Amino acid sequence: MDGIPPIALDAMGGDHAPGEIVAGAVKAVRERGVPVVLVGAPRAVSEALAAHDAGGEIPIVRAEEAIAMDEGALASLRRPRSSIAIACHLVRRGDASAVVSAGSTAGVVATGKLRLRAQPGVLRPAIAVPLPTRPRPTVLLDAGATADVKPETLVQFAHLGAAYAETALGATAPRVGLLTIGGEAEKGNKVTKRAHELLGADPALDFAGNIEGHDLLSGAVDVIVTDGFTGNVALKTMEGTVRYAFSEMRDAIAAGTFARLGALLQRSRMRALRRRLDPEAYGGAVLLGLNGTVVIAHGSSTAEGIAAACSLAATLARQGTVARVGERVAAASRSHRRRWPANNHEDR
Amino acid sequence: MDGIPPIALDAMGGDHAPGEIVAGAVKAVRERGVPVVLVGAPRAVSEALAAHDAGGEIPIVRAEEAIAMDEGALASLRRPRSSIAIACHLVRRGDASAVVSAGSTAGVVATGKLRLRAQPGVLRPAIAVPLPTRPRPTVLLDAGATADVKPETLVQFAHLGAAYAETALGATAPRVGLLTIGGEAEKGNKVTKRAHELLGADPALDFAGNIEGHDLLSGAVDVIVTDGFTGNVALKTMEGTVRYAFSEMRDAIAAGTFARLGALLQRSRMRALRRRLDPEAYGGAVLLGLNGTVVIAHGSSTAEGIAAACSLAATLARQGTVARVGERVAAASRSHRRRWPANNHEDR
Repeated sequence: MDGIPPIALDAMGGDHAPGEIVAGAVKAVRERGVPVVLVGAPRAVSEALAAHDAGGEIPIVRAEEAIAMDEGALASLRRPRSSIAIACHLVRRGDASAVVSAGSTAGVVATGKLRLRAQPGVLRPAIAVPLPTRPRPTVLLDAGATADVKPETLVQFAHLGAAYAETALGATAPRVGLLTIGGEAEKGNKVTKRAHELLGADPALDFAGNIEGHDLLSGAVDVIVTDGFTGNVALKTMEGTVRYAFSEMRDAIAAGTFARLGALLQRSRMRALRRRLDPEAYGGAVLLGLNGTVVIAHGSSTAEGIAAACSLAATLARQGTVARVGERVAAASRSHRRRWPANNHEDR
Repeated sequence: MDGIPPIALDAMGGDHAPGEIVAGAVKAVRERGVPVVLVGAPRAVSEALAAHDAGGEIPIVRAEEAIAMDEGALASLRRPRSSIAIACHLVRRGDASAVVSAGSTAGVVATGKLRLRAQPGVLRPAIAVPLPTRPRPTVLLDAGATADVKPETLVQFAHLGAAYAETALGATAPRVGLLTIGGEAEKGNKVTKRAHELLGADPALDFAGNIEGHDLLSGAVDVIVTDGFTGNVALKTMEGTVRYAFSEMRDAIAAGTFARLGALLQRSRMRALRRRLDPEAYGGAVLLGLNGTVVIAHGSSTAEGIAAACSLAATLARQGTVARVGERVAAASRSHRRRWPANNHEDR
């Protein structure tokens, strides 16, 4: 185990909190060597720890309140002592190296923005999600933190995503694509057409041009940028389509006699494939652009998903993703000023 | 065969034009009883007809030019005598009941707007695509005609889609959903949040609320409205994800010995399923809101896809989809004026 401060794990967030969250913490500590501190209601958490014979093995930090799964962004203002808020506070003080929560995404994003604040020069935060492409995941952002963007925001998202790909995925000179509705530069809506120009003019980015919806899973680029509205729709469309394709296949298989025999033979492989497409396996989404690492695990996470999220958070902390975002954003803003020295109104 | 004027089929548009287009026309006439007129270069078209022993069976209308597959919207201005333009002209004059083209979508949309013009009161046209849901397809629009929309445009799209569902799919009182990024009214971007209010206030619509990406294929509603940027991304994401899921499955199957045997047994069922998800099978997208029916077949359409597109066009013409759109838009605008008599600046 290396010397990073522990991961602050929100014990109260998620559909199966605190039971599965605590079980995930135990897994992370015992099987993956990731240091964890649990943030939540002390009695419930320690009871859950005892069930794993892990009382005293993982420290607990008290949080009086929790943000419910169906609560939105406003709850972060109403509950300044929520488990997510306290977890952010630990990171801010340097007592934890990252936050992990399976709580409501809107609640985690709002609390993170409020408690950790945006990094210097960052216009808006973004949620980065790795897509199951090969040989390496493609990072899609924003998956829902910022629904309305300016073209300049999309350029920053490119740097946020590139920093993530460099530090968490080991990409060198990550290639960046812009999600839009045609291969040519003039295709898209007003925001993406202008963003296309800005991305192409940025010397610190390896811009590969436009990416269309059917190429999201082709692995053609390392980073795909889009606004949080489109990104969220695309990501959920992928999830829904995978579910649909599998269910249609199940129906097709069940309809035939010979086919049923075939299905028996390959059921285990199907299961392996489904697992690979499962958001639990990759650990979760990452909120980028704040003064601290925040990993948002799937709301329905079980122990395995929580352990993977803690591993991901530890990797991001060790690799210095937040610092790399800071370097990239600072460099981009310097180069921007150099090119338009007397006219930097676009920086606002 | 009933008495509608023929379908004006653009013989020069599509990856396999004119060969597969003409073959599709022959299929439409002989197997589906749909009257067709072919629009294009007479020599090439009549040679293709001769190959099917169909010389003289299908009339040809001469068009000097064609819009290439890689040409965009501007080509419609540069080529006023293109095969698509002439096909639109036939509809305008009443000599054809609908246009079918497998040409470049941008070219078809731009030419259709220019030659057929928007219906009275229609702000912007939209492309409607039926999704393979059960028991009845869900109509998604806009799939790419109008990338930047106002909230009022989305309300009109709801009426366009409802008219399509009523006439082409036999839906009564179609339920309309708004594609956005959360179930609650306050989720979304600026445009969808306002559109949510307007849709809910429209007495002529059965508004079912917000729809998320993972519910596109659930068949929960009859019509899903969105801007042409998001709709195009979502549709192509679906196509890409289906292709990805099948290819992953093929890999999983090929990796095992037992599994390979299973695969052999169910290959035919897989093929049937793929066909059902194939855009060729359902005939194509429909450009709504113009003074005439325009069906946009997939660029890679073969004869079967073209024949299906001609059938769809004939159904829309027989069912009076254009007239129904006109009625709905007129009624919506009357009710709008009734509710805000002194302040109709939102109508602009």
